Amino acid sequence: MADTVTIKEVGPRDGLQSQPVHLTVEARLELVTALIDARLPEIEVGSFVSPKAVPQMADTDTLVAALPNSGCIYSVLVPNQKGYELALSAGITEMGLVVSATELMNQNNIGKGLEDTFSSAEIILERALEDGVDIHVYLAVAFECPYEGLVAPATVIDQVNRLMRCRPSRLMVADTIGAANPRAVSSLVSELVAQHGSEVLGCHFHDTRAMAMTNVFAALEHDVRLFDSAIGGLGGCPFAPGAKGNLATEDLVTLLESMGVNTGVSLEHLLTAVTTANRLLGADNYGRSYSWVSRSWQKLG
Amino acid sequence: MADTVTIKEVGPRDGLQSQPVHLTVEARLELVTALIDARLPEIEVGSFVSPKAVPQMADTDTLVAALPNSGCIYSVLVPNQKGYELALSAGITEMGLVVSATELMNQNNIGKGLEDTFSSAEIILERALEDGVDIHVYLAVAFECPYEGLVAPATVIDQVNRLMRCRPSRLMVADTIGAANPRAVSSLVSELVAQHGSEVLGCHFHDTRAMAMTNVFAALEHDVRLFDSAIGGLGGCPFAPGAKGNLATEDLVTLLESMGVNTGVSLEHLLTAVTTANRLLGADNYGRSYSWVSRSWQKLG
Repeated sequence: MADTVTIKEVGPRDGLQSQPVHLTVEARLELVTALIDARLPEIEVGSFVSPKAVPQMADTDTLVAALPNSGCIYSVLVPNQKGYELALSAGITEMGLVVSATELMNQNNIGKGLEDTFSSAEIILERALEDGVDIHVYLAVAFECPYEGLVAPATVIDQVNRLMRCRPSRLMVADTIGAANPRAVSSLVSELVAQHGSEVLGCHFHDTRAMAMTNVFAALEHDVRLFDSAIGGLGGCPFAPGAKGNLATEDLVTLLESMGVNTGVSLEHLLTAVTTANRLLGADNYGRSYSWVSRSWQKLG
Repeated sequence: MADTVTIKEVGPRDGLQSQPVHLTVEARLELVTALIDARLPEIEVGSFVSPKAVPQMADTDTLVAALPNSGCIYSVLVPNQKGYELALSAGITEMGLVVSATELMNQNNIGKGLEDTFSSAEIILERALEDGVDIHVYLAVAFECPYEGLVAPATVIDQVNRLMRCRPSRLMVADTIGAANPRAVSSLVSELVAQHGSEVLGCHFHDTRAMAMTNVFAALEHDVRLFDSAIGGLGGCPFAPGAKGNLATEDLVTLLESMGVNTGVSLEHLLTAVTTANRLLGADNYGRSYSWVSRSWQKLG
């Protein structure tokens, strides 16, 4: 098992994009700043998508321009070539790019078929290599699709092989609707790690069925050391019915640090970020370990 | 990994003993009946302890006398020889018996030192072999003690070896305060299974730090197939500061059935049992997967 894990905090993007309250750029910056204070090594700060489709992510360019120089790696999600160009113009050099493992999820998520999505991704990946941009490709609904049901592991393995030919900086296996179980994760991840190594493979889990932590552990056992999470377990994909919150960052850090796996994250300041998010959103989103951690961070912090 | 797992539902004992609302025998019977309907193979229905110490468990003999003949195995917790005799008189032939891994937990839990507790357990175990009674010995605070901190695995291994000489029907490694992490579980359980086999070894996890599910998975990987849980995640030990709820039965069943591990439990009826418990207690205790399961049991049930 790895000694160190890198957490990418996706609350400001995957978390906020599904909230009924739309935060101002100032509020989003306040949240990102709280996350920087918690020493998250990477933060996905927003996305360059149409504000008509996802109004919560409007003006991400303004947010990016206001980000402090902190040592934290800022990334954004880009849906297509246009988003890529906008992000690059904004000075971002680490971007998430989503392709879905099923035909119907691609159609529902971005209005294009699977082959179109993969071809577009290949063009962007080629361009990114020239530009020196790191692309984290997300293979969404890699276990189960809300429209097509269970996704065959052989399909996912083929798709990963195809995407890996374009040398993404990171390939994230995404359980977009929180349907994966640890046995399936263990099986798929072991095969992917055997073929591609664990350096560029990561996992993005949602906690719909309370299995996200266990899925992380299953992936860790195969040496995966790149994980996404969102403070307070914020999240849910607006285009994926049934997609509930992300794995909560405070739960992930609790799990990892309890096992002696270093994350570099300050649990004390992470709890502050959780309360900041709840204040800004007028919500009560907490990870499952929050009440324990809030009493005990002194021992762990 | 096992194809089949046996769940002992401990809500009516470990769950109810910490509740501010004290249920009548009739209400406790209603809850047990709902759990029988959910096809739990084993239910810990109460304990034969002093009603002064744990008033929630008073009149367990009356409850036992009213239990239907259902095929479900009913057990009770007994603190000592006197409790053993009372349970036997009530017709119970499966009993839980707690010994704690640390000196201070034994003193705080039952007012006796560690050596006294182990000696008493040995006498009861010897007697049970003569009587044909199944004893499930619980080794409490097997990972961390609220009074003494981390418990050395070597200590636990020695204690299990000692207890195993008296041939208990089951040896349950209990994380009484929910402090275990899956790496520690994996390490300890693999050693215990190597020495004693997995037939008589089980695990009892609490979910204080949101790691109970992951700990189950870690134990499953070493072929453990006996687990305790409580509907709605009810629980907490009145004598163990910081002990929060048990692993929720609905979460455990969701995890296991998702992985293709058979439990025999009806998720549909389990949800009814959860709402029954909440109605009786005037509470809102739900497992973490409850909202998803309640929408989706049709697919799983």
